Amino acid sequence: MKKYTEMSPVELKEELETLRSTYKGFEEAGFEFNMARGKPSPAQLDLSEDIINNLPWDKGYLTESGDDVRNYGLIDGIPEAKKLMAEMLECDPLQVVVFGNASLNIMYDVVDWAFVFGIDGEKPWGRQESVKFLCPVPGYDRHFSITEGFGIEMINIPMTGSGPDMDMVEKYVNNDPTVKGIWCVPKYSNPQGISYSDETVRRFAALTPAAKDFRIFWDNAYCVHHLYDDESRQDRILNILAECEKAGHPDMVYQFASTSKITFAGSGISCMSSSVKNLDEIRTHLSIQTIGYDKINQWRHVKFLKNRAGIEEHMKKHADILRPKFEVVMKKLDEELIPLGLGSYRRPNGGYFVSYEAPAGTAKDIVGKAKAAGVVMTGAGAPFPYKKDPDDSVIRIAPSYPEVDELEKAMDVFVCCVKLAYIEKHI
Amino acid sequence: MKKYTEMSPVELKEELETLRSTYKGFEEAGFEFNMARGKPSPAQLDLSEDIINNLPWDKGYLTESGDDVRNYGLIDGIPEAKKLMAEMLECDPLQVVVFGNASLNIMYDVVDWAFVFGIDGEKPWGRQESVKFLCPVPGYDRHFSITEGFGIEMINIPMTGSGPDMDMVEKYVNNDPTVKGIWCVPKYSNPQGISYSDETVRRFAALTPAAKDFRIFWDNAYCVHHLYDDESRQDRILNILAECEKAGHPDMVYQFASTSKITFAGSGISCMSSSVKNLDEIRTHLSIQTIGYDKINQWRHVKFLKNRAGIEEHMKKHADILRPKFEVVMKKLDEELIPLGLGSYRRPNGGYFVSYEAPAGTAKDIVGKAKAAGVVMTGAGAPFPYKKDPDDSVIRIAPSYPEVDELEKAMDVFVCCVKLAYIEKHI
Repeated sequence: MKKYTEMSPVELKEELETLRSTYKGFEEAGFEFNMARGKPSPAQLDLSEDIINNLPWDKGYLTESGDDVRNYGLIDGIPEAKKLMAEMLECDPLQVVVFGNASLNIMYDVVDWAFVFGIDGEKPWGRQESVKFLCPVPGYDRHFSITEGFGIEMINIPMTGSGPDMDMVEKYVNNDPTVKGIWCVPKYSNPQGISYSDETVRRFAALTPAAKDFRIFWDNAYCVHHLYDDESRQDRILNILAECEKAGHPDMVYQFASTSKITFAGSGISCMSSSVKNLDEIRTHLSIQTIGYDKINQWRHVKFLKNRAGIEEHMKKHADILRPKFEVVMKKLDEELIPLGLGSYRRPNGGYFVSYEAPAGTAKDIVGKAKAAGVVMTGAGAPFPYKKDPDDSVIRIAPSYPEVDELEKAMDVFVCCVKLAYIEKHI
Repeated sequence: MKKYTEMSPVELKEELETLRSTYKGFEEAGFEFNMARGKPSPAQLDLSEDIINNLPWDKGYLTESGDDVRNYGLIDGIPEAKKLMAEMLECDPLQVVVFGNASLNIMYDVVDWAFVFGIDGEKPWGRQESVKFLCPVPGYDRHFSITEGFGIEMINIPMTGSGPDMDMVEKYVNNDPTVKGIWCVPKYSNPQGISYSDETVRRFAALTPAAKDFRIFWDNAYCVHHLYDDESRQDRILNILAECEKAGHPDMVYQFASTSKITFAGSGISCMSSSVKNLDEIRTHLSIQTIGYDKINQWRHVKFLKNRAGIEEHMKKHADILRPKFEVVMKKLDEELIPLGLGSYRRPNGGYFVSYEAPAGTAKDIVGKAKAAGVVMTGAGAPFPYKKDPDDSVIRIAPSYPEVDELEKAMDVFVCCVKLAYIEKHI
């Protein structure tokens, strides 16, 4: 197979004719496929069917603390749910507060509390002259929307194969007191599926921030979301809370997680994990903000998932559904684009995305072409602050929602769009 | 029965001896009763048992909009839940956004959005020199905690038998541009059980605020919470949204409600009802703050409560449990305190509280004495901004949680404490 990058203009033009005809066929087929969001498929949602109507409620509603989960109380979560989430995050239940259905909402609240009330006695961010966040890119668009919403200046930090560029992170955090936070998805990162190396985690823990109110926003969204049973293909990352403690910075990190992609997207439970000191500060905010979170749903999750082993067992079923879908995406990229010298990607061992780096300057065009042919992708630029991809290259592929056969067709469309966009740009 | 207020010091001293002996008996009995919070009793929670594990799920998970309630999407609520809440609040489903488990959290969010982002293009409250809220007193302590938390200055507005003193409300709202809001519980008010008269509601709707970003915070927490089946003993209030529209101020009110005291305290669903314009502004905030609320729980509530008639039917069962408890409280006050000239109260037709106005200067002492004898009451002062009751008189009695026989004993303790406190203050 001759690489496009090595073809003459004449050869490229010949290819173009064929591709245009193929593309026209796709347009006429009237496809409607969606690879835009990390949405679980109905088959994945069915895995948690028992939560909805088949739990052993006969043992009643009293937690081990003697509280009725159906009534007011326990604003920071039922003990059993704290324990469950602590097992998942490998920390102490004392380091956990259980919230409602969305960890994104916790992250928003944490930024908001810092903005309005300040962290640990420091001036509220809303009254500081300048507040900056570091944003490893490509990253999660919803993180960036939060900081953008609060008018926080976002600084791109390039991702490497072992996590964010730590030289840059250290330079900013240790010297600039206006840098207050960094968004991290440390395991199976969104969108690249990169897991931070031990060295990266240790360098995070060893940061000596110029700002007392600097915090690492550690969104461990995919902590148990492996694609493979084989342990050699399961990424492991160091425990950030333990590392920060060891390094003498126990209060430097806010960790977030949820069961949104374990049980139900939007009807799971979420938690925050941090030092007791940080959590105490957060409890004072919670006591004003709410009467508490949905403890019946916390109870449901405890009864259904039970413990760490129960979660792992359950996640294998998700992997069995997701793995073939990821493999379709990777196979198409491997067979149709990589040999032509068109773009690149990293092979993830877990998470929800494949991040394809298209030839520079073509991502927007590709996503637009795909959409016109009935295949909705995440918007080009979305994985970057202010939706600006400096190279117009990164395209996030979310294979979870469509069925395998749909995905094959959708990837055929995608591949065709990449080729078209490349050629149109280069002739 | 001779009134205490007419007794000579010698007579009062004789009474005191007997009372001290009675009180000592209570102390020794080791009671543990709680009349502090408006907490449903286990029997009330049992009424919604079917929500937990006996719903007709066989019809699947697709809403009428074709969305799977188990997946992401529909950030402002499923159509069926909007319809249910709209029926409860007698408004259009387009005027409803359905949130999570706590209406208090919506109220917090709304104040927070105004503080950080501003309302309808106005300067954020957090950047305005002075922001004030009107607080009808006595009122709901958790409302006041929110405004206090944001450093908003709170101004007491006395309650009358037909709602807040509207002359004062009009004077403040129509003339002072720093007055941005007023906390209202318009039906079966917390703690007095007063329902706003038609004239009061119309005067609210006719306000001409000096501040463009003034809003009425209309917490319709007890909209369907009658104590009596007899319709002549069920309070009705005018529809504030309709009245505001008629008066040409459609955007002036934010209405809140929830099922916390219909189904489960802390695991219900909540909503906000306002003009489409206001709700559109709120949807822009929500789209950054969360991925959505728990739609499975919204679905549960729709399946269980069905419609307005279903809610009313269900609320009768609550009334049957609550009514005898309220009657114990009122009987004890009627028989043991009122004839002695000690304090006063209004007889509520619904809601969750009886508000007893003790002789001036005794409330703190009474609550302290009750606590020492094992009966926990809401803190004296709690129904006032900054927890300061200028007369040290109002005590909120919450009869819902204890059983009837416990309540009788608890009220005996309470009555004894009122008498003791009065005499000790007056001899």
